[in-house]
Amino acid sequence: MLGKPARQRDVTVSEVGPRDGLQMVHAVVPTATKCRLIAALHAAGLPEIEVASFVPPKLVPQMADAEAVTRFATTLPGLHVAVLVPNLRGAEAAIAAGAQKITLTLSASEQHSQANLRRTRAEQMEVARSVAAHVAGLDAARRPSLEAGLSTAFGCSLQGAVAERDVVAMAVELAAMGCDSVGLSDTAGYANPAQVARLVRLVRAEIGARCDSLHLHDTMGLGLANVTAGVEAGIRIFDGALAGLGGCPFAPGASGNIVTEDLVFLLESLGLDTGVSLEGVVAARAILAEALPQEPLHGAFARAGRPTGWQPAQVFA
Amino acid sequence: MLGKPARQRDVTVSEVGPRDGLQMVHAVVPTATKCRLIAALHAAGLPEIEVASFVPPKLVPQMADAEAVTRFATTLPGLHVAVLVPNLRGAEAAIAAGAQKITLTLSASEQHSQANLRRTRAEQMEVARSVAAHVAGLDAARRPSLEAGLSTAFGCSLQGAVAERDVVAMAVELAAMGCDSVGLSDTAGYANPAQVARLVRLVRAEIGARCDSLHLHDTMGLGLANVTAGVEAGIRIFDGALAGLGGCPFAPGASGNIVTEDLVFLLESLGLDTGVSLEGVVAARAILAEALPQEPLHGAFARAGRPTGWQPAQVFA
Repeated sequence: MLGKPARQRDVTVSEVGPRDGLQMVHAVVPTATKCRLIAALHAAGLPEIEVASFVPPKLVPQMADAEAVTRFATTLPGLHVAVLVPNLRGAEAAIAAGAQKITLTLSASEQHSQANLRRTRAEQMEVARSVAAHVAGLDAARRPSLEAGLSTAFGCSLQGAVAERDVVAMAVELAAMGCDSVGLSDTAGYANPAQVARLVRLVRAEIGARCDSLHLHDTMGLGLANVTAGVEAGIRIFDGALAGLGGCPFAPGASGNIVTEDLVFLLESLGLDTGVSLEGVVAARAILAEALPQEPLHGAFARAGRPTGWQPAQVFA
Repeated sequence: MLGKPARQRDVTVSEVGPRDGLQMVHAVVPTATKCRLIAALHAAGLPEIEVASFVPPKLVPQMADAEAVTRFATTLPGLHVAVLVPNLRGAEAAIAAGAQKITLTLSASEQHSQANLRRTRAEQMEVARSVAAHVAGLDAARRPSLEAGLSTAFGCSLQGAVAERDVVAMAVELAAMGCDSVGLSDTAGYANPAQVARLVRLVRAEIGARCDSLHLHDTMGLGLANVTAGVEAGIRIFDGALAGLGGCPFAPGASGNIVTEDLVFLLESLGLDTGVSLEGVVAARAILAEALPQEPLHGAFARAGRPTGWQPAQVFA
């Protein structure tokens, strides 16, 4: 497996803004600007960045430069370069471009699977099997880590409730076919902390630490409460997006990802070393603001700044 | 003790918008509008509303009608009418107006105490003693419940860190002098979930369930994560403000209170009955929007609405 983080951290913040964020905005951000943004995020200490999705440019023109962006990202020292793919063709292109982590997206909701992927859950499970087989057949030197990303694991804006037993069953099947990890995504932003604690524990009871990451949105304002529940349940990889960009075109009503800056502030406040510079992440917002002047930038840390006298994990007995 | 909630709920949402919110806005809202707002909040099922603060009108002109507003609130069936007071004179006026819960404010931060109350912590502790003695001397029929509200318990924007041993010592002294309850306020919005869990447990280890409420702000985006930590630590009364109004004029950088609508959504999602109608609270926002057209109204629930198929405490096995 390539591209392990250069140094050990307590928790990994995986920045998905260049993919999940820029995919959702109306403008197509120039490749050079994307690369400048990714370099700034890397400079801020983010150990993993989801830099692109390898999807048909006709469907998502914002990602037409996925190969160039991925190749650039692999030149940044120590960066774990992650990408999203919907199918085997995307996985092959991503691996050719040098991606070190491939997240194959599936939906726990049947309706969202058909709207977002144009395949049933069962059909996409077969896609996952083909990708897992392809990755397993690669030389160790070229082999990326393979994550199955389970969208709408906590509820779906199209279908409503998603059965937890379905999520658990899919996770078990994906782990059995050789996925290195299974991430749970709250695509619609419907999760609450009790639900996060429960579902993470249910999945980990079956596949253990291979259920290692959460991708949370802030639709209902509960994103950071859900992070806290995830930390308590043992999760140590959290996705965030600079300034809370993002959403899902096929999950109506979903708002942005949790804000990376606020996620880092929370984790550091809880005493978990992220290795990320808060000021560095805030500095990267300037690139976004310049490239996307129409786009609202979210986030409490960027607005309020560092609390007076604040230190990570301070305890004042 | 007067004005217990009309029916048993799992958790009490105490609406502080008419006090903490309207005290902070620049405009002076007419008394009739305040009463209409309070009536709408009561109609939405909020069991307790902090309707005013009894402070010198020269210092806080927004609260010059505290007596009239309090008298109106006492006419609303089943409502627990709460007010804030800084001293004995305010307490006497509040009791004369029919307040059923008096929150005497003190600061755990020495600097905030002097900035906000113009008294040292020790001097304000003597004020608390005089108020407690006054309340204890009243006939049972007229006697309100007396809460000591400990501002800046989780940090201070003027002073920075606040020693947890100071908070515990003040809570012990306040309980010993006869305060019915001690509330912990994150005036600056600096708290994190681990800190909330720790401080609540430290205080409850000394004074038990008399440490029963949290007043949280959302400065760093952690307000609802802190609520979750408070629930887990046994707290069952949470302050919120309609649309997240509020702050503190003497705590620079503090942003608004946690949003009542989102607080209710979180608590109901956790399976705790609040007795509050989310749609009713959202309806009350229209009164605010009309009365304060310049004021930004916050809140995820009001923006996103009810998740598809959402039910309180849903578990989909």
